[in-house]
Amino acid sequence: MYAGRPYTQQHNHQYQPPPPGYGSRPPHHSHHQGGFAYQTPQGPPAGADPQLWQWFTAVDADHSGSISVNELQTALVNGNWSRFDLDTVKMLMGMFDVDRSGTINYTEFAGLWKYISDWQNVFRHFDRDRSGSIEGHELTEAFRSFGYNLAPSLLTLVEHKYAQASEPSVGYGPPPGITFDRFVRACVAVKSLTEAFQRIDTDRDGWVQISYEQFMSIVLAAP
Amino acid sequence: MYAGRPYTQQHNHQYQPPPPGYGSRPPHHSHHQGGFAYQTPQGPPAGADPQLWQWFTAVDADHSGSISVNELQTALVNGNWSRFDLDTVKMLMGMFDVDRSGTINYTEFAGLWKYISDWQNVFRHFDRDRSGSIEGHELTEAFRSFGYNLAPSLLTLVEHKYAQASEPSVGYGPPPGITFDRFVRACVAVKSLTEAFQRIDTDRDGWVQISYEQFMSIVLAAP
Repeated sequence: MYAGRPYTQQHNHQYQPPPPGYGSRPPHHSHHQGGFAYQTPQGPPAGADPQLWQWFTAVDADHSGSISVNELQTALVNGNWSRFDLDTVKMLMGMFDVDRSGTINYTEFAGLWKYISDWQNVFRHFDRDRSGSIEGHELTEAFRSFGYNLAPSLLTLVEHKYAQASEPSVGYGPPPGITFDRFVRACVAVKSLTEAFQRIDTDRDGWVQISYEQFMSIVLAAP
Repeated sequence: MYAGRPYTQQHNHQYQPPPPGYGSRPPHHSHHQGGFAYQTPQGPPAGADPQLWQWFTAVDADHSGSISVNELQTALVNGNWSRFDLDTVKMLMGMFDVDRSGTINYTEFAGLWKYISDWQNVFRHFDRDRSGSIEGHELTEAFRSFGYNLAPSLLTLVEHKYAQASEPSVGYGPPPGITFDRFVRACVAVKSLTEAFQRIDTDRDGWVQISYEQFMSIVLAAP
């Protein structure tokens, strides 16, 4: 049997934790108070940050008062101007669409904005060579810092799976690095898969007994 | 313990099997024979199909003689003109770049073309309402026909995970359906995950004992 510590979560080596609540849904705050059903959104809510409201209205291209998956995908770009993958955008919508309306309102947008800003800081920290993407050794350092003790073979799999292919790679050299949006998705995926595994591994020995349906539902629920 | 048959593979109800070799790498045929190292590609190989050569040169936008990930992504569109996801393109490259050059040559392109054409027929067959996307019941029918006995909850997860979000969804109605490229990826992913599980489940009871590293490597290797 495997005797190692498959997922150490010691925090002593961490430079900087991932954004708070990384990978989990924010708590549901809003309560429907009744009122006009057809309230035309015309201005910022009381107390709204003017700059954030400005960004919100810019992303809300059709001026509907809330942001759709497509509007969000159009607005989000990586450092190399590539668009965020649909899967990353859907993951973010799933995390921040607190009222399950299918769109992002201003309050939800504020949470999303903070989350992305926090991840941008994490990304910049680990992109040591300022290349705009996370390469193999930077990825290794990031996961080690987050407390995930992934075997080198797993890190290689993450590196290849989430690598952008923004330039024609000639031959099989190292993969071309992971851009911002795919880095966030890789981190959230590893976290959610590891936590799902740990929930079943109650004796913490790194092994689980798992059914086909459990296995498939964990995998399909991960981003 | 689970007594059902978690992954029946009976073939009696299949209308049409997925493309041959679906999800697996084609065998390696080419052998390097030596010769000029800098051979400029100027015309079709002997015996090449003229139409296929025409398509190949159209996709090879920089006329390098082979197709990069980016050229392939630019060339592949769904019925609604959306681009193929990078992950689908990388999956196809991984399957058809037989000589591991990082690009697709004409011979490899012929295999890829056939594979996509076969999948287009499968897609058209299951898109009963000719909507250009596979909706929930069409997806259920497709997986049943392929011989995968997925529980309804798993089919719902597949439906949501691979759904395109091409229109702003208002509220949480049914997901907007799965476009061609994501349908292929969903089918290849379910197949590769199921086969990886089955390889460990030697007594075929639908349960496995699996380590964290095995679990993560199966998941990260799937498209």
